[in-house]
Amino acid sequence: MTTAVSNVFHRDCPARMVLDHVGSRWGVLILTALRERSHRFSELHATIDGISEKMLSQTLTTMRRDGLVTRHVDPAVPPKVHYELTDFGRGLAEHMHNLVRWIGANAEHVVTAQQKYDAQEPPARQ
Amino acid sequence: MTTAVSNVFHRDCPARMVLDHVGSRWGVLILTALRERSHRFSELHATIDGISEKMLSQTLTTMRRDGLVTRHVDPAVPPKVHYELTDFGRGLAEHMHNLVRWIGANAEHVVTAQQKYDAQEPPARQ
Repeated sequence: MTTAVSNVFHRDCPARMVLDHVGSRWGVLILTALRERSHRFSELHATIDGISEKMLSQTLTTMRRDGLVTRHVDPAVPPKVHYELTDFGRGLAEHMHNLVRWIGANAEHVVTAQQKYDAQEPPARQ
Repeated sequence: MTTAVSNVFHRDCPARMVLDHVGSRWGVLILTALRERSHRFSELHATIDGISEKMLSQTLTTMRRDGLVTRHVDPAVPPKVHYELTDFGRGLAEHMHNLVRWIGANAEHVVTAQQKYDAQEPPARQ
């Protein structure tokens, strides 16, 4: 185990903080969407099913502060705003993408495991 | 974007459920610990700073139900219990490991970005 990895186990280490930010459900989904292309706020809101505008706004602010996302105001009337990944955010998104792709490809395996577990008698679950 | 990836955006798709389970802070940390070797409950509790026994127990149960982790009772007096990854869980842990390693190696970059962001005048943050 490298030091960099073991750091995530300690609550005061930066790696744990980063994990909490980018590992959040909404952080993962925003990264996954922005990996494809830049999005306007309303597009992100429409793409990510179930996210509230408040949570989207808060998560984008956290990601901007973390240096993962930039916010651009396009000179138009009315002004249009879009979000895109920084080079740093893109590096993270690529690593995240491999994981998300694996999850997407294997989700049914989990559903099958759950059905098998639920069919057991309670004592067998202990 | 593949169908498997786009599924994570929809709240009723299995991929989103899996993402919520394994993407949780504690799920990631348990996978990361068990990737190294099997652990007893008390070892996991000691390794993962800040997790309560209740949350560890709940997360392990979710991971067993998802088919990621198995629980073994060693015949001893008193019986000893340890947890280890299934082959399926190991596949996930390997993908997760690449991400966690990247986060560990880049966490300081995030801290620097945060300091830069916080030093801006509030209007520049809008």
